[in-house]
Amino acid sequence: MVGHAFMGAAHSQAWRTAGRFFDLPLAPDMAVLCGRDAATTRAAADRLGWRDVETDWKQLLTRDDVQLVDVCAPGDVHAEIAVAALEAGKHVLCEKPLANTVEEARAMVAAAERAQASGVRSMVGFNYRRVPAVTLARRLVEQGRIGEVRHVRATYLQDWIVDPQAPLVWRLQAERAGSGALGDIGAHVVDLAQYVTGDRLTGVCGLTETFVRERPLPSGQGRGPVTVDDAALFLGRFASGAVASFEATRFATGRKNQIRLEVNGSAGSVAFDFEQMNELQFLDGGDDPEVAGFRRILVTEPVHPYAGAWWPPGHGLGYEHTFTHEIVDLVRDVAAGTDPVPSFADGLGVQLVLDAVARSAEAGSQWKEIDR
Amino acid sequence: MVGHAFMGAAHSQAWRTAGRFFDLPLAPDMAVLCGRDAATTRAAADRLGWRDVETDWKQLLTRDDVQLVDVCAPGDVHAEIAVAALEAGKHVLCEKPLANTVEEARAMVAAAERAQASGVRSMVGFNYRRVPAVTLARRLVEQGRIGEVRHVRATYLQDWIVDPQAPLVWRLQAERAGSGALGDIGAHVVDLAQYVTGDRLTGVCGLTETFVRERPLPSGQGRGPVTVDDAALFLGRFASGAVASFEATRFATGRKNQIRLEVNGSAGSVAFDFEQMNELQFLDGGDDPEVAGFRRILVTEPVHPYAGAWWPPGHGLGYEHTFTHEIVDLVRDVAAGTDPVPSFADGLGVQLVLDAVARSAEAGSQWKEIDR
Amino acid sequence: MVGHAFMGAAHSQAWRTAGRFFDLPLAPDMAVLCGRDAATTRAAADRLGWRDVETDWKQLLTRDDVQLVDVCAPGDVHAEIAVAALEAGKHVLCEKPLANTVEEARAMVAAAERAQASGVRSMVGFNYRRVPAVTLARRLVEQGRIGEVRHVRATYLQDWIVDPQAPLVWRLQAERAGSGALGDIGAHVVDLAQYVTGDRLTGVCGLTETFVRERPLPSGQGRGPVTVDDAALFLGRFASGAVASFEATRFATGRKNQIRLEVNGSAGSVAFDFEQMNELQFLDGGDDPEVAGFRRILVTEPVHPYAGAWWPPGHGLGYEHTFTHEIVDLVRDVAAGTDPVPSFADGLGVQLVLDAVARSAEAGSQWKEIDR
Amino acid sequence: MVGHAFMGAAHSQAWRTAGRFFDLPLAPDMAVLCGRDAATTRAAADRLGWRDVETDWKQLLTRDDVQLVDVCAPGDVHAEIAVAALEAGKHVLCEKPLANTVEEARAMVAAAERAQASGVRSMVGFNYRRVPAVTLARRLVEQGRIGEVRHVRATYLQDWIVDPQAPLVWRLQAERAGSGALGDIGAHVVDLAQYVTGDRLTGVCGLTETFVRERPLPSGQGRGPVTVDDAALFLGRFASGAVASFEATRFATGRKNQIRLEVNGSAGSVAFDFEQMNELQFLDGGDDPEVAGFRRILVTEPVHPYAGAWWPPGHGLGYEHTFTHEIVDLVRDVAAGTDPVPSFADGLGVQLVLDAVARSAEAGSQWKEIDR
Repeated sequence: MVGHAFMGAAHSQAWRTAGRFFDLPLAPDMAVLCGRDAATTRAAADRLGWRDVETDWKQLLTRDDVQLVDVCAPGDVHAEIAVAALEAGKHVLCEKPLANTVEEARAMVAAAERAQASGVRSMVGFNYRRVPAVTLARRLVEQGRIGEVRHVRATYLQDWIVDPQAPLVWRLQAERAGSGALGDIGAHVVDLAQYVTGDRLTGVCGLTETFVRERPLPSGQGRGPVTVDDAALFLGRFASGAVASFEATRFATGRKNQIRLEVNGSAGSVAFDFEQMNELQFLDGGDDPEVAGFRRILVTEPVHPYAGAWWPPGHGLGYEHTFTHEIVDLVRDVAAGTDPVPSFADGLGVQLVLDAVARSAEAGSQWKEIDR
Repeated sequence: MVGHAFMGAAHSQAWRTAGRFFDLPLAPDMAVLCGRDAATTRAAADRLGWRDVETDWKQLLTRDDVQLVDVCAPGDVHAEIAVAALEAGKHVLCEKPLANTVEEARAMVAAAERAQASGVRSMVGFNYRRVPAVTLARRLVEQGRIGEVRHVRATYLQDWIVDPQAPLVWRLQAERAGSGALGDIGAHVVDLAQYVTGDRLTGVCGLTETFVRERPLPSGQGRGPVTVDDAALFLGRFASGAVASFEATRFATGRKNQIRLEVNGSAGSVAFDFEQMNELQFLDGGDDPEVAGFRRILVTEPVHPYAGAWWPPGHGLGYEHTFTHEIVDLVRDVAAGTDPVPSFADGLGVQLVLDAVARSAEAGSQWKEIDR
Repeated sequence: MVGHAFMGAAHSQAWRTAGRFFDLPLAPDMAVLCGRDAATTRAAADRLGWRDVETDWKQLLTRDDVQLVDVCAPGDVHAEIAVAALEAGKHVLCEKPLANTVEEARAMVAAAERAQASGVRSMVGFNYRRVPAVTLARRLVEQGRIGEVRHVRATYLQDWIVDPQAPLVWRLQAERAGSGALGDIGAHVVDLAQYVTGDRLTGVCGLTETFVRERPLPSGQGRGPVTVDDAALFLGRFASGAVASFEATRFATGRKNQIRLEVNGSAGSVAFDFEQMNELQFLDGGDDPEVAGFRRILVTEPVHPYAGAWWPPGHGLGYEHTFTHEIVDLVRDVAAGTDPVPSFADGLGVQLVLDAVARSAEAGSQWKEIDR
Repeated sequence: MVGHAFMGAAHSQAWRTAGRFFDLPLAPDMAVLCGRDAATTRAAADRLGWRDVETDWKQLLTRDDVQLVDVCAPGDVHAEIAVAALEAGKHVLCEKPLANTVEEARAMVAAAERAQASGVRSMVGFNYRRVPAVTLARRLVEQGRIGEVRHVRATYLQDWIVDPQAPLVWRLQAERAGSGALGDIGAHVVDLAQYVTGDRLTGVCGLTETFVRERPLPSGQGRGPVTVDDAALFLGRFASGAVASFEATRFATGRKNQIRLEVNGSAGSVAFDFEQMNELQFLDGGDDPEVAGFRRILVTEPVHPYAGAWWPPGHGLGYEHTFTHEIVDLVRDVAAGTDPVPSFADGLGVQLVLDAVARSAEAGSQWKEIDR
């Protein structure tokens, strides 16, 4: 695994835990953790459960005890590492967003397709797909239980930089992060929307805003310009004809990590709110009007996705379990020789949307078609 | 109508409004308002829409333009007025609780039964039965949609005397109010429980508590003892074998008028919360487990009780509409020559439960059977 | 009053009720109801409480017993009636939307300004402003309790024409209704957003969609084209720099009349949902982080807008009360010689936004500035 | 660790995880798993992460690589194992309920007190205390933020045996399980109530019910009697004068694992619902009435109990994390030489309450004082 910050900790917990609750056809061996500084990385490896460490990710590709590279490093190095790993015959799990630019993403998809021919697998880490309630939403849509999709409404609201004195960390710098709320959290809701509907956005228009344009440098000395968006809002159309609204922001005071998705179809609706992540709201348009209403499904029953492997009904899961489910599915696909989802192509699909939004915002909210 | 305080205002609004939205077989004529002080009563009559005033309720019984007496005076005069009115051949609507004692309540029931023989009708004002969501709950239970009832859970929480400096108003004095939270608001949840289940409590045990035992007199001079309960908690058994838990309190800090009722049956459940009075939660035990969950029914559809007479779906009603529905049903029954519900006997049924709770509390929470 | 359908019934209830609960400086006299058909109108007048009837609205302007004209007719006749009434020296309450076109709305504003000089008042009926929770939200924003506004998120979701067999009523025909969801319900959320923020939208981009393009004629014979939008989605910018997202649709399966508004500021947030119309969510950014969180304020306390005139705390209001509050404020302004809000200019302000959205949608979602 | 069923899996995950997210002064070594059948236990040990296995728990006491015994076996063997372990100088973590009888519990407390003198620690596993929201509730009560406690309302609702064909498993047999819903889940809410208030129940009255009195044997052949309660309801009084209501049931159709606790005090209230386990509702009675209301605190901030060790704000935890927190606190106490809570005495405190409820139920709901 490359990287040992927030995402590294989440993935490590998933690698450690997957086989404890799910029957896996392969036993993951947490071989090597890779980071820049040897001492820090060694300490992280001990804490996170990795046997060995490297300080140059290229070394991973030469090691026989590494069959899969899990890329948790920042977005600007995703492409380089992932492409090299795939070419070295290593399976790759790459955190989202797939890359900072469409060009990089296209190169990664090309590499993934070449690697696939020789049985090497790749996956991009949109973990929220694997909240059981979200997976169930997808299942219901796929079964036709909400009919033809007409509306998608998706928001991802945070508030961690409302304070204008919050420092200018790397996530607020375009050269490192690519974009701001758009790529960091907007990517998740775009993926969720495309995943749950099973459809693709064909065009968007949007706007972005940076409310606080200058912030103290992390060093404490001086101030610098914020070069990414604080918030991004956009509208879109799906291939099916459905219309959609999206918002991603870091300025929704009081909203910590609120992901909401609602899909209205001709025969029903589903609605999800990550603040109640163990629940799915489902409206069955066919119910007797006297007793029709959104059902609050506690997605903790044995019949529900992933839930049976954990605890009895009503004993909920948390954020981290989404990563465990990701690892379970990935390991099963690797063993079975099947292609995991979301694929790099799915990641590119998200990237194309984000890129169109950014271009629209720059062009005064002009409509931008999304070519694939 | 006798009385023109809080309940008088609510009933007046209902009398004024019923015929505006519902087709009534009779046109109510708001003839006379009765109060103690002539000037105050005249002013109230003007504001509330009554044509004439009286200062002695006995005068109402002699007037030909009075066919129905609506008793909104305090509980200690209910029996006297209601019995006299029935004997004078006037239909009677009497606010809850039916009376302050079981003896009075029994006398009222006897009077109601005698009057019924000559076509004179009587009704007790448990208005919360006529929240559309509550009426729907009853309908679903009656249809067998939750099966055999096992559990009832009912609470009525207020907080208006948490402040120990709140004055010693008449509602805190046993000689005028009979009891405290128990009779004032506990009566409502006992009625709701018996109404929705269609069943009768056969025994209870309970406790009461007075947290603040002395309060400033309303005059501002000196202090006096609180002689009623601040809170009452009790358990009960229904004839069907169901078990129940009740709580009524004026000390639930932050809860203003929170009435909750949940009924679990062998085949489903219903749950109601007056803070979301336009909603009923319904769990259909027969639903496919994958999509089973409590349904939040917005009880504003034309198929729902009372709702069709008002506004389009989703345009909710408020507290006062419960009284309008009460008047509508009462007027229709009077016109049709049928007996309205809740009857005085239903009111006595509640009174017997409250009495048993009070006796249990006095006897160290001993179990008390409820004889009828 | 002109018109006696849904809005006519709502306004009549408000006219009948306002003086029963609020101290009014003038006693409204419900003089004349105007409708096309004499018999139908007479029946409606009896049911709704109007003394006299007319079948030509122009007659109202000549009558001495009419000082105020309440326009509840469809939008295409608003301008003609309102302008004539103002010129005849009658105060005017006009239902929303102010008019079907910006031109008509401008003419109405001009008439209102001329009339104002001679003490004649005008008001447009955006009733949702007078939900106590919404008025409280405005008050909190005005007091600076959420700081500088950054985000507005507003949706109005209905589902009454999801069924493709629902007939082609006049609301689905452009020549009569002007637009579809956009003008009918989008108007409300635009007004709410501008009202609560105290700010004006300066530009928008949007899209509209008609999912079911042909429907059975109401006659039952044949089918005709739907010429209005089923749904409208748009983004906007406020003068203050805040960004906003709006959606109005009649195709959100399971959502009956769900109006949601959230405003995030630099120091707090407010959120409202009409399905819980007696509540306001408020986040005070200054709270101690250990106990910070959205507060569910039950807007039924005496300190809250309008609430003190009604029932004790926790006894909620319904949809119709918004109209009563509207009438109360209007009557008070007329008596005091002050200008009611929302004014015709406010109504025009909404119309300009809707017009810009429609133009944007026609121009492939191009950004449209809003000139005033 | 003794036992490897549901609780064994939960504890194992906690032992594996505690040191990954929290700084522990000692590194737990998962030495030996003990179960009855060698093969099954070996398989479980591999899955759950234990190095070695034993089939006789007495062997654990003789091993030098065992310093702590974690008792996850059924309640009827708790006393024997725990007492022997403590006498052998092993620290003990014992699952709840502490024992099936008060006598056993007293013996365990005596053993714990003797062991404490020589530095041996003991803890009982009421894991729900360590839901961060519950720990925060305790903190707020302790700080006096809700003032003097007046009301406690606690329910634990499940529905797993509503179906009368559900088999007669050991949990439905008195000789093995001691009691039914009362001891299994009622124990949790009694502990929560005593923990959050920091107070002790001094008396109770209650009733129990068994709705389905005969069930199919697990073998599929024949039927047998259910000898435990399906539901238990009881009222209680705390030493402080607060009054309380409790309910534990397995027959609340549609409620999977719903634990609710509300505490009302003279200056505020707290409310918790395990279905939203990452939230605490808090009412500050001192708030300005205009903006007072229950605050929905997302208990995921660094200032909140346990939360800082996990994920960023808004990224919630699940059921299993309560066990991890339990282990963290236990390990820290063992290292520091301090006594963990809840102690065996706390466990006995719960047992005394349950015993009093059972005695009350047998005696026709008679009030039972709780002697300590």
